[in-house]
Amino acid sequence: MRPPVVVSDPAVLADRLHAWRSVGSSVGLVPTMGNLHEGHLGLVRSAAASVRHVIVSIFVNPTQFGPNEDFARYPRTLEHDLAQLTGSGCDLVWAPSVATMYPLGPGQGFGVSVPAELGNILCGDARPGHFDGVASVVLRLFNQVGPDMAFFGEKDFQQLRIIEHMVNDLSLSVRIKALPTVRETDGLAMSSRNGYLDSGQRRQAPLLHRVLSQCVARLDAGQDWTAVQTEGLAELATAGFDVDYLALCDAETLAGPDPRRPMRLLVAARLGSTRLIDNLAVQPRGTVGTS
Amino acid sequence: MRPPVVVSDPAVLADRLHAWRSVGSSVGLVPTMGNLHEGHLGLVRSAAASVRHVIVSIFVNPTQFGPNEDFARYPRTLEHDLAQLTGSGCDLVWAPSVATMYPLGPGQGFGVSVPAELGNILCGDARPGHFDGVASVVLRLFNQVGPDMAFFGEKDFQQLRIIEHMVNDLSLSVRIKALPTVRETDGLAMSSRNGYLDSGQRRQAPLLHRVLSQCVARLDAGQDWTAVQTEGLAELATAGFDVDYLALCDAETLAGPDPRRPMRLLVAARLGSTRLIDNLAVQPRGTVGTS
Repeated sequence: MRPPVVVSDPAVLADRLHAWRSVGSSVGLVPTMGNLHEGHLGLVRSAAASVRHVIVSIFVNPTQFGPNEDFARYPRTLEHDLAQLTGSGCDLVWAPSVATMYPLGPGQGFGVSVPAELGNILCGDARPGHFDGVASVVLRLFNQVGPDMAFFGEKDFQQLRIIEHMVNDLSLSVRIKALPTVRETDGLAMSSRNGYLDSGQRRQAPLLHRVLSQCVARLDAGQDWTAVQTEGLAELATAGFDVDYLALCDAETLAGPDPRRPMRLLVAARLGSTRLIDNLAVQPRGTVGTS
Repeated sequence: MRPPVVVSDPAVLADRLHAWRSVGSSVGLVPTMGNLHEGHLGLVRSAAASVRHVIVSIFVNPTQFGPNEDFARYPRTLEHDLAQLTGSGCDLVWAPSVATMYPLGPGQGFGVSVPAELGNILCGDARPGHFDGVASVVLRLFNQVGPDMAFFGEKDFQQLRIIEHMVNDLSLSVRIKALPTVRETDGLAMSSRNGYLDSGQRRQAPLLHRVLSQCVARLDAGQDWTAVQTEGLAELATAGFDVDYLALCDAETLAGPDPRRPMRLLVAARLGSTRLIDNLAVQPRGTVGTS
């Protein structure tokens, strides 16, 4: 099988899209920063089952990295990515240059500001401006591709919710499809950043998911969140994690949890200089007499 | 003739657009805040000559007014507007509610931040956040309507340039068509805010355009900008204007003027509590030996 065609010229992308559109074909977009793993490929397969043509974008977006973050060392592995995508159902890889994505310069053009109650909490608290950068690039990708559907993983749960809110608030017509986190057999959520871990850290890393699962079990058993959080933080510290947050949120609004509504337990923690995130669903408590 | 249909429900708008799109018809958008005058109607006629279907949006956008500005008293004249639009070539008036335009609340949802060098100068200096509000609503209108072309007047020159830059920077596919300012017979630029003027102010108001024209004539005659500006400011003060700015800019970037490139002379000034703006083109100077 041949790998998907790689396009970096917006005029070529527009021509291809026009040809597809003119015969009424639907188009799906899977936005990525490359270094593809099974999580991304699951999104591509889901897209291929839902739309006629699948575009995977590969763009390491400078505006979502902070000044002391890993933009420079973020893995760029286009050849490997194309090999992965061969036979996956991807028709075209959209790999724009920074100048195509940001004609006025990255961080110097028109920005998207995410409401503080969505963008400045959780990962946004530790990474100021991160979600403005994410929204800024995703909006541009949506404008460039004009997809009927776009596919995101629940691994980046806050990002997913922010994009869903953006689509609604900005009257975008794309439909967002969310897919469950794909995990290694030991439970570690797949992530391009897992490649930064040394072998010792890699052995510790699955504890993040294990502690998260235990917290959910305790919540399901009716334990108080404050007690669960204290215990979870202690377990993560014992396992060698430097924790950014362990938080329970409303699953839709990311605001403080209402036990009668679906919730989400989210964690961000570092092993050495590598920042890992994960999250799990928490079901509403079966309270009597509430609707 | 029947007035154009008024639509406030996004689902109804989407149905109508789908019907038009499915037979390959082009769509043009004329964004307005209502209280239509001959300037708007010129945009509508130009749109009708360029596209198959013309949508005029009428929405008094709260996010582009400052806390001490005229949002509350801004004229809302839908009946009169529909009468004006009858026979103009407008097929549909899109008149969304504030909740439709801003599902998360005006000023509380996703914002668009205009680069400071475009949005914080000239009118943006006196009206902080104004152009972020303009960009925010225009982006939503573009997303709701998906027009092939959108029509703006040169009267709001800074707004026009900001929208053109936004379209380019955010990879929007709409084409922006600019039309010259429409003037009263005495030279006053048509504006909804002219209705705020009392009869004495109305007699003074055309001096804004007259002084602007004199400044352009002096620049064309080779006079130095600093001298022209000093003279112009004095003339405006004598005529009773409280001047916000009288500025010479690059006509494309709005940066400091380069005499070898097209320039724009812009003015904002108050008569009582009414703020008027106007602008005129300034041709490049015919320098020898430059390309």
